[in-house]
Amino acid sequence: MNSATTELIALVKRADTLANIAGLLGWDEQVNLPPGAAEQRGAQMAALAAVVHTASSEPRIGALLAQLEQNGAAGLTDDERTIVRQARRDYDVATKLPAAFVEEKATQDSRGYHAWARARADNDFASYIPVLEKNLELVRREAAYLGKGDAPYDYMLDKHDPGLTAAAVDRLFGELKRELVPLVRQITASPVTARARTVGEKLRGFPIDGQRAFLREVTGRIGFDYNRGRIDVSLHPFCSGTGSDVRMTTRYKEDQPLDALLSSIHETGHGLYEQGLPADLLGTGLGINAGMAVHESQSRLWENQVARSRPFWRFFEPRWRELFPAQTAGVSSDELYLAINAVEPTLIRVDADEVTYNLHIILRFEIEKQLFSGELAVRDLPAAWLRASRELVGLEPANDREGVLQDVHWSGGAFGYFPSYCLGNMIAAQLWYRALALRPDLEADFARGDFSWLLEWLRENVHRQGRRFSALELVRRVTGEELSPRPLVRYLRERYGSLYGL
Amino acid sequence: MNSATTELIALVKRADTLANIAGLLGWDEQVNLPPGAAEQRGAQMAALAAVVHTASSEPRIGALLAQLEQNGAAGLTDDERTIVRQARRDYDVATKLPAAFVEEKATQDSRGYHAWARARADNDFASYIPVLEKNLELVRREAAYLGKGDAPYDYMLDKHDPGLTAAAVDRLFGELKRELVPLVRQITASPVTARARTVGEKLRGFPIDGQRAFLREVTGRIGFDYNRGRIDVSLHPFCSGTGSDVRMTTRYKEDQPLDALLSSIHETGHGLYEQGLPADLLGTGLGINAGMAVHESQSRLWENQVARSRPFWRFFEPRWRELFPAQTAGVSSDELYLAINAVEPTLIRVDADEVTYNLHIILRFEIEKQLFSGELAVRDLPAAWLRASRELVGLEPANDREGVLQDVHWSGGAFGYFPSYCLGNMIAAQLWYRALALRPDLEADFARGDFSWLLEWLRENVHRQGRRFSALELVRRVTGEELSPRPLVRYLRERYGSLYGL
Repeated sequence: MNSATTELIALVKRADTLANIAGLLGWDEQVNLPPGAAEQRGAQMAALAAVVHTASSEPRIGALLAQLEQNGAAGLTDDERTIVRQARRDYDVATKLPAAFVEEKATQDSRGYHAWARARADNDFASYIPVLEKNLELVRREAAYLGKGDAPYDYMLDKHDPGLTAAAVDRLFGELKRELVPLVRQITASPVTARARTVGEKLRGFPIDGQRAFLREVTGRIGFDYNRGRIDVSLHPFCSGTGSDVRMTTRYKEDQPLDALLSSIHETGHGLYEQGLPADLLGTGLGINAGMAVHESQSRLWENQVARSRPFWRFFEPRWRELFPAQTAGVSSDELYLAINAVEPTLIRVDADEVTYNLHIILRFEIEKQLFSGELAVRDLPAAWLRASRELVGLEPANDREGVLQDVHWSGGAFGYFPSYCLGNMIAAQLWYRALALRPDLEADFARGDFSWLLEWLRENVHRQGRRFSALELVRRVTGEELSPRPLVRYLRERYGSLYGL
Repeated sequence: MNSATTELIALVKRADTLANIAGLLGWDEQVNLPPGAAEQRGAQMAALAAVVHTASSEPRIGALLAQLEQNGAAGLTDDERTIVRQARRDYDVATKLPAAFVEEKATQDSRGYHAWARARADNDFASYIPVLEKNLELVRREAAYLGKGDAPYDYMLDKHDPGLTAAAVDRLFGELKRELVPLVRQITASPVTARARTVGEKLRGFPIDGQRAFLREVTGRIGFDYNRGRIDVSLHPFCSGTGSDVRMTTRYKEDQPLDALLSSIHETGHGLYEQGLPADLLGTGLGINAGMAVHESQSRLWENQVARSRPFWRFFEPRWRELFPAQTAGVSSDELYLAINAVEPTLIRVDADEVTYNLHIILRFEIEKQLFSGELAVRDLPAAWLRASRELVGLEPANDREGVLQDVHWSGGAFGYFPSYCLGNMIAAQLWYRALALRPDLEADFARGDFSWLLEWLRENVHRQGRRFSALELVRRVTGEELSPRPLVRYLRERYGSLYGL
């Protein structure tokens, strides 16, 4: 690499290292912080945020970028271009937003969160209207500062998933919706749905120590490197950190033993991605994930395609029964498999199964799109939500708490984030069939407890690529085809068709 | 306060906030860090250290100090003077050491640690000689940069305990030694020593969950605020953090149930001090401990005067027996008390009881003094250690591992640190008798499980004073007398005289 690139890398790595410290403080806040220390931690976060901002907006970065970008970045290798592109993204965000705007947004994010929590508790959407209106205004202004004032929703999508546009999502979700709505109707009408519910209720009284031990065995076997990561307990599961210090969380419920397990496998998918990024270039375009959709594809692939499969349980079920002999005595293998793959429409996104989950996302995308196009006013959100819920999920919220007030995202201005969840499902399924085509024995591997081929294939094709490619480019390169909802629909039909006797 | 003071406070608090983040990373490293993440964490610590250094050497701090110090700081209140004095200390350390020296020292500290670990493992003092010589040289240079080149050992003592001098320590330790050596000889000759050992060996198989619960109850009852702190597990117990986020650690051994308990009470003493500093001025002279000796006095007071007393156990013993009925069945109350107060000379400082511990410290102080005066060369350390150990502890190390190689401190250049341990014991005893004089019913409080009077008295007289006074001044103000070893000797004679039938 030339010396300007080397210098640029040192500067962006420094900013990233400081940002990772902020990430660690965030993890610590969720996992360890004494209740009375919130204010002290707030001061630490604020001081560190200022430091990170100073490091990210270091003028020398700007000078190096200007130099490297000359003549269309001619003379740079592809990898150097990837690094320059990502550095430019970060530098523009750090330098183009006026300090007063950043402060206004930080204040509004915090206010918005509390307003949302209150509105949800009181089922009072009216009080939340000005917050959402303000948040939409701030997003439009942010997009304008970054030169994307003409397409603020595209700007938000691109923020979470570099290269993504509303038009692309619209096309993909439209096709998925046409296939998925009837499939869910079929499943719901199946008598198996009621049976799945009964089985789930049989799984009771699983001691947490045993759950922890089993989950540790499973996630370690899959490939999570506990020498370079850990798992703890927090209110909501998440995965944070990168490289050699990846920290997942889960939460245990004695009467929902599959919950901690499957959510941990989900987080393991995220964790494997972060552990698999090129260590020496962390924080550069070569050492950062390709966006939230690809990130989510990794978590979903391990959680759904792998850990909800029969071969996976063929290997782990004996150990599960060994750890919980009394609790599993009255549950057959078929019943366990059914409990793992229970499908039932719900009003609440975070409670949804892997099939109907996608409908919740499509609903939110359609509403966000209309909010940004101006077709929908904030005050009309509840009615629009109700209509869309009926059409997509087949259920009507009885109140806004079960409807438009259920998610935290918009309260902090995180529009355009939801689509990545469903795109992640699509990418996971498309990667899955590509892997199966390359290694027809893949599920036989799983039945022997061997997940190494799949992990190594993902390492090579996804993890080690960092942010070289956008989500759409990555899928094209790895699978040889454009991203499409068809593999996801195929996967759901295969898995749930036979299970629900469709 | 005037506006210059206000501005100065904001700047030093900012530097302190960033330094506290580094402290949290240090805690995390001992408690949580995945084994493979050491290098990544090292990069974070280095980046943060540079940030802290920049914040601490902010030129505006220097300008404000120069302004406030004019005319002998005339016009400032006492509290403002305290703040200015501490800010000056920190600013001089941050600005007077050349960057090249700081780097050289950091490298040498790390090298020194590894050289020490190797030398101890191999019992190879010869390989450690150049490290110690280099460390002594670096300390001399550091003292010189800060204008204390004529008295580097005083500089080091003052670094850990503002205002402390070798002459003062020499006088105090000389007097203590004359009293303590014969007392230990008497105890060692007592047949009770052997019995204490036997009782200790009876305490076996205490489940860790129960130990954790008991220790939590005890430390909470004493006054540690778990709303503003926590306790975790690490290899060596320590206490870190301040204000509303104070984190202690301990380690559990099933066959040494008193170890985790008493060491946690020790850390609780440190923790209470940090929780009791004035929250709004953390990091200034009013919101920082008065030095390591006073810090240690707080841990020792709660560990020794309080938690090794009969009244303390009158209250907690029933609960202890309730939690561990089988394990405690064959242990009488007198035997328990004896196990808690077992005295037996040992070669290893960290294994020493509260009586002989002081001799280990005197030994190290005498050796450090001679190293700095030039009376003793590094290569002659093992022989000097052997002589001093025989004289003071009454035991001869069979090798350097049991002697001069046992402590980590010097490997990182931490000379002048040991004395604070013993000074802490002296201060604790002197505070203790003052408290007893003011509240003769103090031990009756303990027997009822009420520790509030003592805590509030310490809060008012020690914790809330921050760094207003040096250790020696603080003792003078609170007890009305100069610091002296006599209260410590009196306390040890009272407690151990009756127990060992002297």
